Amino acid sequence: MPDYAAHVPLVHLETPCLLLDETRMERNIARLKARLAALGEAGGVTLRPHLKTAKSIDVARALMPTPQGPATVSTLKEADYFASHGVRDLLYAVAIAPGKLRHVAALRARGVDLTVIVDSVEAARAVAGAGASASAGMPIPALIEIDSDGHRSGVQPQDTAQLLAIARALEEGGAALRGVMTHAGDSYNCRTVEALEAIAEQERAAAVRCATVLREAGLPCPIVSVGSTPTAHFAKSLQGVTEVRAGVFVFFDLVMAGVGVCTPDDIALSVLATVIGHQHAKGWIIVDAGWMALSRDRGTARWAATAPAAAASSGTASSAGTSDAAASAAIARWRRDQGYGLVCDLAGQPFADLIVADANQEHGILALRPGSLGSATLPDLPIGAMVRILPNHACATGAQHDRYHVVTGAGPVRAVWPRINGW
Amino acid sequence: MPDYAAHVPLVHLETPCLLLDETRMERNIARLKARLAALGEAGGVTLRPHLKTAKSIDVARALMPTPQGPATVSTLKEADYFASHGVRDLLYAVAIAPGKLRHVAALRARGVDLTVIVDSVEAARAVAGAGASASAGMPIPALIEIDSDGHRSGVQPQDTAQLLAIARALEEGGAALRGVMTHAGDSYNCRTVEALEAIAEQERAAAVRCATVLREAGLPCPIVSVGSTPTAHFAKSLQGVTEVRAGVFVFFDLVMAGVGVCTPDDIALSVLATVIGHQHAKGWIIVDAGWMALSRDRGTARWAATAPAAAASSGTASSAGTSDAAASAAIARWRRDQGYGLVCDLAGQPFADLIVADANQEHGILALRPGSLGSATLPDLPIGAMVRILPNHACATGAQHDRYHVVTGAGPVRAVWPRINGW
Repeated sequence: MPDYAAHVPLVHLETPCLLLDETRMERNIARLKARLAALGEAGGVTLRPHLKTAKSIDVARALMPTPQGPATVSTLKEADYFASHGVRDLLYAVAIAPGKLRHVAALRARGVDLTVIVDSVEAARAVAGAGASASAGMPIPALIEIDSDGHRSGVQPQDTAQLLAIARALEEGGAALRGVMTHAGDSYNCRTVEALEAIAEQERAAAVRCATVLREAGLPCPIVSVGSTPTAHFAKSLQGVTEVRAGVFVFFDLVMAGVGVCTPDDIALSVLATVIGHQHAKGWIIVDAGWMALSRDRGTARWAATAPAAAASSGTASSAGTSDAAASAAIARWRRDQGYGLVCDLAGQPFADLIVADANQEHGILALRPGSLGSATLPDLPIGAMVRILPNHACATGAQHDRYHVVTGAGPVRAVWPRINGW
Repeated sequence: MPDYAAHVPLVHLETPCLLLDETRMERNIARLKARLAALGEAGGVTLRPHLKTAKSIDVARALMPTPQGPATVSTLKEADYFASHGVRDLLYAVAIAPGKLRHVAALRARGVDLTVIVDSVEAARAVAGAGASASAGMPIPALIEIDSDGHRSGVQPQDTAQLLAIARALEEGGAALRGVMTHAGDSYNCRTVEALEAIAEQERAAAVRCATVLREAGLPCPIVSVGSTPTAHFAKSLQGVTEVRAGVFVFFDLVMAGVGVCTPDDIALSVLATVIGHQHAKGWIIVDAGWMALSRDRGTARWAATAPAAAASSGTASSAGTSDAAASAAIARWRRDQGYGLVCDLAGQPFADLIVADANQEHGILALRPGSLGSATLPDLPIGAMVRILPNHACATGAQHDRYHVVTGAGPVRAVWPRINGW
């Protein structure tokens, strides 16, 4: 891809490419920061943003409380990259593989306060052993991962024996127990405001309970870390929590709109594409953004059978109070299968019911949503016309690209921000 | 990711990372080349390999008839990259966007014989206009895309008027009409040997018919280009075809195994991953390769409801002759939902019924296949153990990585080959 100078109009960009609406991004960041300032202990709770969504130092600086952090990463390559840009307080939030501990120790020897996570005695012993054998002889700090919702990894919150065994393996082996962390990944499956509030409270309570177990056993637990984008936006209390991790909120996406955390107007990321053909008899418009540019993520497919009216009425039928029921009905509005993405004009306004109905590697097929009942008509988009496609999942779509073209509204491009990928 | 010298044992690699079994790759290439040498006109038909799967000059050199090509690409970034490594004969096999024609002309001015494709009069006029206005004043060569199977783009093969209108817009406008091309993408949906043979013949016949229409109208058509990995492997005749394009065959994958073009033993690409945790009560093993390393491609999900026995009997129930029915039953053996990938040991041998049942960004959940009926048991894979995961779709999985670790069998790594991504 050629290098683009700033202030290039969108229509001069070579497609497909990734656009980042800076105004929307800043609004999304301000929204969560204001929320967290009002919750938790006196003075609010710390945001430790998850940088796995953006993987860009320019976005990270807009997210982090200070240029040194804190922040969360999902790979050691992210840790290397952000460390090279001066970030000093990082949590690597994937259970550590023993084979990566030498890399972790090397980063710590460079002055990066990198913390790892464990959910087994075996891994705790490996962390303790790596710290003891590191050339600097410095203990590696670790959090114990708690499985607050059965979603994936972590110690069951009621399994006190396992929790204490891991904590002691860390402390007695010579690692530094820093506390506990959990991630309520199951919040992506919530369908009502009350369900979102309940899973946020479940996440908080599990982490705080485990912190209490450790402290009552005389073990240190300075950090109580929770987070997912939905729970961060719906928690009513963060009592006892010291930090919140969230990532996708910086850009938002169609899955988050379907869960009810945002609307499509909040989505800061889009893929710019050009019309390259038509199959008029089928009502298809072909563009040059396929699944390679959009990602294979079909996270909205779960809502394939959910007509908007049905979703709204199921919200109303819940046992929530009137205002929660209305809120649940409102958030159900965007709970739809969006194919490989929702198609917008150059200013970022969605066309009625126009989605990427199917995709090949470098081809996207735009068509009206099945069941649009003839109320919407295919827009007139001749060969060479450009569209913007909102993604199902910002983390997955972003990862298909190596840079952001930073715009506000319909452009022009005011900057190009590089991003990293891989391991 | 750190740079690895050659001859590193697999167990010393930092995971996740991409492995390429060179012996399997060479066998896959030899198989298709032998096939094409025996088909087509006297002397065989030219292979114009599609480099969108590998995106690596090292792999390309093993595929191409000569270091200068010919080859096929899916992006202009691939064209730039391969041109910088001396490839001179390239087909960009996505209908051209007018905004990319200046880039095409620049590549041609560098001495690259880059051909584009069109399926509309509008695009043909744009190509003709760009050639006429290029500084060198050189016509841009184009193929007309034919829609041989209703899969995506192209002129309907019976639409003679449209075909001739595009051809004349190219020739009279000053572009260079080089011929016709088609891609039977629908071959991925075939379920029997006869269906595969039939769609290959349909692809050939459509292209040859359109070539005849052009020639009878006094228009040039030196190139008749067809191709997909399934049709290239099942065509009984390539009479009238001058070149075959195919890409995924170089590595193969679980979708190709399900279609019946290969078996898992032929798959040259795998993702190396490390065990980082267990959820014993659920029968889950957690590894550090999630959808970011495996891709979000769930191409085998279409076979979720197909038990192997049922698939075999539907093959037998077909109207094919006995040997075709037996062959169809045999190929149905691998027609299974493989989750996010099939799990193998370090030597590349699959564990019985162990798949990546679910995935998050950097987490894979290994579990026994639903319905494995207790015949398989979860292998003992402690924290730190490594596995290799065969991909659903080689093009999608490869694109998540920036290099291949080249091995034979269980290693060690004999070379590291870079690959490109993006636009």
